[in-house]
Amino acid sequence: MTDRIKGVLSPVVTPFTADLEPDAARWLEHCRWLVSQDCGLAIFGTNSEANSLSVDDRLALLDALGDSDIDPSVAMPGTGSCAIPDAVALTRRAMELKPAGMLMLPPFYYKNMSDEGLFRYFSEVIERVGAPDLRIYLYHIPPVAQVPISLDLIARLKERYPGTIVGIKDSSGDWANTQAMLERFEDFDVFAGSEEFLLATLRSGGAGCISATANINPGAIAALGRTWQEGDADSRQEELTAFRHAVARLPMIPALKGAIALARNDPEWFRVRPPLVELDEAQREELRSTLEAHGVSVPGALAAE
Amino acid sequence: MTDRIKGVLSPVVTPFTADLEPDAARWLEHCRWLVSQDCGLAIFGTNSEANSLSVDDRLALLDALGDSDIDPSVAMPGTGSCAIPDAVALTRRAMELKPAGMLMLPPFYYKNMSDEGLFRYFSEVIERVGAPDLRIYLYHIPPVAQVPISLDLIARLKERYPGTIVGIKDSSGDWANTQAMLERFEDFDVFAGSEEFLLATLRSGGAGCISATANINPGAIAALGRTWQEGDADSRQEELTAFRHAVARLPMIPALKGAIALARNDPEWFRVRPPLVELDEAQREELRSTLEAHGVSVPGALAAE
Repeated sequence: MTDRIKGVLSPVVTPFTADLEPDAARWLEHCRWLVSQDCGLAIFGTNSEANSLSVDDRLALLDALGDSDIDPSVAMPGTGSCAIPDAVALTRRAMELKPAGMLMLPPFYYKNMSDEGLFRYFSEVIERVGAPDLRIYLYHIPPVAQVPISLDLIARLKERYPGTIVGIKDSSGDWANTQAMLERFEDFDVFAGSEEFLLATLRSGGAGCISATANINPGAIAALGRTWQEGDADSRQEELTAFRHAVARLPMIPALKGAIALARNDPEWFRVRPPLVELDEAQREELRSTLEAHGVSVPGALAAE
Repeated sequence: MTDRIKGVLSPVVTPFTADLEPDAARWLEHCRWLVSQDCGLAIFGTNSEANSLSVDDRLALLDALGDSDIDPSVAMPGTGSCAIPDAVALTRRAMELKPAGMLMLPPFYYKNMSDEGLFRYFSEVIERVGAPDLRIYLYHIPPVAQVPISLDLIARLKERYPGTIVGIKDSSGDWANTQAMLERFEDFDVFAGSEEFLLATLRSGGAGCISATANINPGAIAALGRTWQEGDADSRQEELTAFRHAVARLPMIPALKGAIALARNDPEWFRVRPPLVELDEAQREELRSTLEAHGVSVPGALAAE
């Protein structure tokens, strides 16, 4: 038995004002809607442009979340950074909100680091934060970070910090790797990095998924997370996967923001921080068609608020 | 004619205290020695563990440099960051010291970004800093950053910001790429990322090199930079390259710090921030042999201070 978070979380996209500052009001509005769709809040993930935000940007958003009416126990802030002091500062502040846990990237500048070096990194952060109730979900995303988290590193961290290292988000896109994690580790919550693997993950005893497209299709993904043992689960999985693949033909983060902009008729939401580039007109049209073809109606969902 | 910096710069390694804080006193001592060897100071480079430092860590070191007796006009601080506000804060503060220029990484978290997105990133930083005397040296290091700076991106940036985009450090290790930069761009200072290419770069009209091993072999590298037109240049280049390759059999940053620790008989210098790992005993012995075999005597150089 555990009170740990399960199900579907969204790496919450971060809206920007005209001068490219984080727009806390729109961000909280999106958070509230995601929670209303039974989605947890993986704020400061890859799809949140977290590494395009300064530490101060993120601390300010944590303050906004803390001051809001949103239940922070469904949040899993991303606090991993290249620099240990940044990871510690973010984790300490996030701990004050009593979130579900932290989603921690490895330091991602240097490549081909040893497990010993990565162990020392996580160890140093954990020791400095020094909070017995700290829960860390490791964040394995080799296509982007280019710094993988090996099974042996997980084993070593789990053994040294059993109550702290409680799970992982596997964004490798490699189901064999997810399966290996599910088979090898006890008392370890594996979240797939895409809803494409949600059903397979749950059937193998996994915890759920943390997926980009949960920003725009949260209701259907969360529903499968709750009722995956029902007879139509496979066909619902197929439809979720088809929608995901259709969206992924566009650049993912601009597309997520684009879908919200279209749904809310709010062009502010198109904005991204460089090096990302917002969708152009042709891409917006393609996105509109994709949303219609799959019956994913972000505005409809919004109307249900 | 230009007053721009030329020759050999060292990406200054950053010493740490027992609690892993930057050790400004030892850092300034190393900077002073490098300058005495005719080496410029590429502080906050890859070999400086710059991305393992918080913005505040780097601002504090800039303060220390500004308060020291060291001539900041030979410094080229690394100020590129994943987050635009960080790059702007670092560049603004560094500008106050009137350094030779900034060495700017592209934002390196997201991979496969478009030239348009990278152009917008550099553009946003330049516009926000808003200083007519800003000089930027682009930092092309695909093996680590995994985000290359293409020739077309350079051309576009140079055209839009002709007085600002003044050069590049090419750490691709790909001489064909360095050559292509040298051939294509006028009024653009190309620094090789390793002394292995110093002579070839200078013979092709390049500006010099910014090289890791200039931390421990600065005198000989800088000498070749000054007297590359003399008859024995090729044999001196061969010896520099042989030493570089011998050191590169060890993990580079721990080896650089190790050589200083051995030379100064100061074990404090062995320390690195995770995810790096300091040299073990066997590696220290190998390093000691390498230094002896190549007659590279860091302590001898120190004695000349």
